[in-house]
Amino acid sequence: MKLTKLIPLSATAALLPLAGFAQDAEVAVAVPTDSVFILNSLLFLIGGFLVFWMAAGFAMLEAGLVRSKNVAMQLTKNMGLFGLAAIFYYLIGYNLMYPLGTWSVDGVLSGVFGPGVLEAVGVTAEEADDYGYAATGSDFFFQLMFCAATASIVSGTLAERIKLWPFLIFTIVLTAVIYPIQASWKWGGGFLDEAGFLDFAGSTVVHSVGGWAALTGALILGPRIGKYKDGKTIPMMGSNLTLATLGTFILWMGWFGFNGGSQLAMGSVGDVADVSRIFSNTNAAAAGGLITALLLTQFLYKKPDLTMVLNGALAGLVSITAEPLTPTLGGATLIGAVGGVIVVFAVPMLDKLKIDDVVGAIPVHLIAGIWGTIAVVFTNPDASLGTQLYSIVVVGVFTVVASGILWFILAKTVGIRVSEEDEITGLDQAELGMEAYPEFAQG
Amino acid sequence: MKLTKLIPLSATAALLPLAGFAQDAEVAVAVPTDSVFILNSLLFLIGGFLVFWMAAGFAMLEAGLVRSKNVAMQLTKNMGLFGLAAIFYYLIGYNLMYPLGTWSVDGVLSGVFGPGVLEAVGVTAEEADDYGYAATGSDFFFQLMFCAATASIVSGTLAERIKLWPFLIFTIVLTAVIYPIQASWKWGGGFLDEAGFLDFAGSTVVHSVGGWAALTGALILGPRIGKYKDGKTIPMMGSNLTLATLGTFILWMGWFGFNGGSQLAMGSVGDVADVSRIFSNTNAAAAGGLITALLLTQFLYKKPDLTMVLNGALAGLVSITAEPLTPTLGGATLIGAVGGVIVVFAVPMLDKLKIDDVVGAIPVHLIAGIWGTIAVVFTNPDASLGTQLYSIVVVGVFTVVASGILWFILAKTVGIRVSEEDEITGLDQAELGMEAYPEFAQG
Amino acid sequence: MKLTKLIPLSATAALLPLAGFAQDAEVAVAVPTDSVFILNSLLFLIGGFLVFWMAAGFAMLEAGLVRSKNVAMQLTKNMGLFGLAAIFYYLIGYNLMYPLGTWSVDGVLSGVFGPGVLEAVGVTAEEADDYGYAATGSDFFFQLMFCAATASIVSGTLAERIKLWPFLIFTIVLTAVIYPIQASWKWGGGFLDEAGFLDFAGSTVVHSVGGWAALTGALILGPRIGKYKDGKTIPMMGSNLTLATLGTFILWMGWFGFNGGSQLAMGSVGDVADVSRIFSNTNAAAAGGLITALLLTQFLYKKPDLTMVLNGALAGLVSITAEPLTPTLGGATLIGAVGGVIVVFAVPMLDKLKIDDVVGAIPVHLIAGIWGTIAVVFTNPDASLGTQLYSIVVVGVFTVVASGILWFILAKTVGIRVSEEDEITGLDQAELGMEAYPEFAQG
Repeated sequence: MKLTKLIPLSATAALLPLAGFAQDAEVAVAVPTDSVFILNSLLFLIGGFLVFWMAAGFAMLEAGLVRSKNVAMQLTKNMGLFGLAAIFYYLIGYNLMYPLGTWSVDGVLSGVFGPGVLEAVGVTAEEADDYGYAATGSDFFFQLMFCAATASIVSGTLAERIKLWPFLIFTIVLTAVIYPIQASWKWGGGFLDEAGFLDFAGSTVVHSVGGWAALTGALILGPRIGKYKDGKTIPMMGSNLTLATLGTFILWMGWFGFNGGSQLAMGSVGDVADVSRIFSNTNAAAAGGLITALLLTQFLYKKPDLTMVLNGALAGLVSITAEPLTPTLGGATLIGAVGGVIVVFAVPMLDKLKIDDVVGAIPVHLIAGIWGTIAVVFTNPDASLGTQLYSIVVVGVFTVVASGILWFILAKTVGIRVSEEDEITGLDQAELGMEAYPEFAQG
Repeated sequence: MKLTKLIPLSATAALLPLAGFAQDAEVAVAVPTDSVFILNSLLFLIGGFLVFWMAAGFAMLEAGLVRSKNVAMQLTKNMGLFGLAAIFYYLIGYNLMYPLGTWSVDGVLSGVFGPGVLEAVGVTAEEADDYGYAATGSDFFFQLMFCAATASIVSGTLAERIKLWPFLIFTIVLTAVIYPIQASWKWGGGFLDEAGFLDFAGSTVVHSVGGWAALTGALILGPRIGKYKDGKTIPMMGSNLTLATLGTFILWMGWFGFNGGSQLAMGSVGDVADVSRIFSNTNAAAAGGLITALLLTQFLYKKPDLTMVLNGALAGLVSITAEPLTPTLGGATLIGAVGGVIVVFAVPMLDKLKIDDVVGAIPVHLIAGIWGTIAVVFTNPDASLGTQLYSIVVVGVFTVVASGILWFILAKTVGIRVSEEDEITGLDQAELGMEAYPEFAQG
Repeated sequence: MKLTKLIPLSATAALLPLAGFAQDAEVAVAVPTDSVFILNSLLFLIGGFLVFWMAAGFAMLEAGLVRSKNVAMQLTKNMGLFGLAAIFYYLIGYNLMYPLGTWSVDGVLSGVFGPGVLEAVGVTAEEADDYGYAATGSDFFFQLMFCAATASIVSGTLAERIKLWPFLIFTIVLTAVIYPIQASWKWGGGFLDEAGFLDFAGSTVVHSVGGWAALTGALILGPRIGKYKDGKTIPMMGSNLTLATLGTFILWMGWFGFNGGSQLAMGSVGDVADVSRIFSNTNAAAAGGLITALLLTQFLYKKPDLTMVLNGALAGLVSITAEPLTPTLGGATLIGAVGGVIVVFAVPMLDKLKIDDVVGAIPVHLIAGIWGTIAVVFTNPDASLGTQLYSIVVVGVFTVVASGILWFILAKTVGIRVSEEDEITGLDQAELGMEAYPEFAQG
């Protein structure tokens, strides 16, 4: 047994229970079923509030990376999308994602499109829907936050030029229908799950879906005015890098809940040890992505680039999300490091393709998400490269087609892009009539 | 049993303990008493640090909604009030709120006004003050944060014109005496509790009390110079809406601890399922308030208003606080939505009455707090509308009278309002001699 | 038993388990060993993500206290140091800190300098490395965050003039070697631990080490250009006090994990009650430091000083870190209050010595760290003043010598200070080619 801090401090405390139970024979060694239920639910609750916190992280990251004339709008979009995700995942998405019984017509009519229903107040062990597992409310809370995170990914890419309401309508359909349907294929026990697809916490199911929806939107929406001129990319610097850094730290913190909570159980020695591995590996991957982006921008451009460093950390986190459990610490660091490489090369590549992704969400969530999904095969012997690729393509095609149709309908009906004049003025003045920093003079 | 993410991933892990205990007969099903104690204490600790975090949320919200010339002072007030709340709730408030035995003269002398005392270091189960329930320290920690939150509510309304020290003296009396006395009527097992008053986490006990104290102060203090001119309200925009949004997200996150922790127990299947319901309902109510404010400002003013959206989310949270357990998800969303309506209509209404509430704390905490307390009757069959109204009035009259006397004494002795010159200069320069953003030019 | 909120609300819930176990005799009272393992691991995971959050706190505090021309660089340094700490503590530090077996040549070769290795995926109780205690991954995660915090302390003092890469190289050696070696003397069961040195969560092991390394660096690096002129100290105000305040709140929140998690066990009534004491005392000490700094600056300078208030809270937290368990609430408040006094007097004293500590980290972490380590003797009967002083000196001499040699080598080879021109321009433009707030005009 490794010497640790506990030895001088708490040897007594740690050993007493052992001593105490000795007289009780083996009976008291196992965790009682009720405790398993409590501990699993607790994991969802802690994981859930950490993933909730990611909504704030996305808001801060995006508000920091847009120009000051669009900050209040970006905040409004992030608030609005989270509120709508909460309502529509409850009204439609949750039961669509976890169909009651099978995907029969009857199933659809009897509950698939119905609202989420929590267990009764003060439920007894016998009455609990998932007795032996966890409280329905804790599962709903946790799953909702994943759905909302998917929507948050989209808002950053399309910032500074998309109209508020069409974006929010897109969010409704994304969180009520598109996300839940594809998520059910894996996490609802659907055909991708049966095919052996492995995606622990959602490199594909969450991040690539957000990324595909963002990419489709960016293609239909077009780049910001003045972004690409005479074959050159004009840099449009984020207005507040402290906010962007804060947002990154928030997302990083939330990711412990995102990946750790996806173990879905904490009621046994094996489960809590796995959650612990996942926390450590998640952190290692972020560090790997961060340091790689720092070194690469130093070598390539002779000057480190803070926004690349931030996106490198996030890409490391996305990369490890498909399999945060099986890698070693070193493996996790390397998987994350590749995420950092992706960011540094994909950001200018997208610019060459004139795809204007304001915050870098496509490299971070889509490309690193694909990488992470593929990387499962390096550390998890149950993974098949073919199945991973097949699933990436299936989810990608579905999301691109569904969101493409939706963006197209929105573009042709209400219109998705603000007027040229409004875009130049800034969405804050034009659409909101307020500014995020009204007192500070523009330099 | 509903299909969930757990099935493909952790079926084995979740079932193993069940398998393990099968041989132990029913004995091992129940949670051992020591575990109940640990889990209850843990709920208080997690809830407590989340409610602590709300202090940062209030600070950021208020710093974002005042003008830049008063930001450093607003931060100083928020830091100061929290420090004083911690000291005076320990010195006086805690034992005043939970009188040892009865409210007899003897009780008062022997401990009611005494300082909080924690359990002994390394306490054994037998020695623990609340054995079978939770650690005294965890309860103290949790309750303290509620007391501090009450004080935080006041600072926003009175911003930009109240002097630092009189405000802090008010905070001392509020946290040492006013809050604990009225809180004891409900949570100390006092007469409102005996009358059947229901206020789960404090729509009345915390939020309306903060709101009444703020309203009383605002009436005695008067509006900011230039706020109401020739029958018109002059908008005074917040200086930093990213901070205000961050503050809202922080408060929202903290509210999971605020409401969830108020279940006060997590050591049984029923309790943890209830905590899970509360987390989900709390989130739903915030979403309801947010989206309602977004839609209403769009319809009424043709432009969504970000500060209304933020306050809408907060009003939704306050609205659900009196009863976050019994509503369904849909009910919680609607209860929160009414909170959003309240904000949108009450903010201009207060301005018509020339009550200058800088951050909108009176609509959010007082009016939505009253609404939330009434709304208990819609979902909790144990609630009586008469008792709810009676309790709202009792707590309101007490708080208005007590804080009115205190504000009046402060106004007549040390004075509570800065000089006209200082107010125009800004409190940062006048009272602190520093600025929050010294390098940024005013626009 | 004290009347608490639980009585009206959850009496049934709290009592039911007691009723339930009555029929099971004493068997079910004790916490099963597996539960102990789970609860201890959970404490590390919660503590760990809270201490992780402190990295964001340091970043925000420092970004708020430097001038705007150096903000992006300060953020880059904070991101970079955390990433490197994560990698090098894994590669070298962790096993160096907890040597496998003894410090023999064999031990060094066989693992001391080897990378951290987590337990196997899905480990069974029998296979777990620390069965009966906690998951290795949870311990690694927790310990890593302490190592990173040590490095974060250094960056603030040396801000605005140190080159990025030499600082990061220093971080590598600090986190891979210097911190782990001295930490092993206490927390790895080394000679200071055997001598009876008491340092619960690291007033000396973490905070003074960071402070000594910062002080040594500040002496070798010299003050910022223009800081000391004609015997006078020229104030260089922080550019963003909202950020600095946010950073302080973040650090305060993280400290609950820092000190509470250092109990290292939560699987018994006594342990969770101790963790609860620690949470309460930690909060009390911060409040004591905060209010003392507020009062002192009011009395000394007639104007409260927000940055002193922030540093007062932090100094209170550092002061209680060596012994957050044994003091009473009042004792903790007083121990923290002395921290507040230290800050108010040590900040100008350092300026008189022309030691330029940009954020006040030396008073907060080094001097208050020494005070906190000495203060253990007032409340913990096991502490010996001689041993405490001896250990402070041993750790101090080691850190000063090791980091002095390292700073010296860096200064003589790559150089540690930016050019005069770059310093005047600001590191953001000079070293990064970007600005944190590019759109805001300088006042």
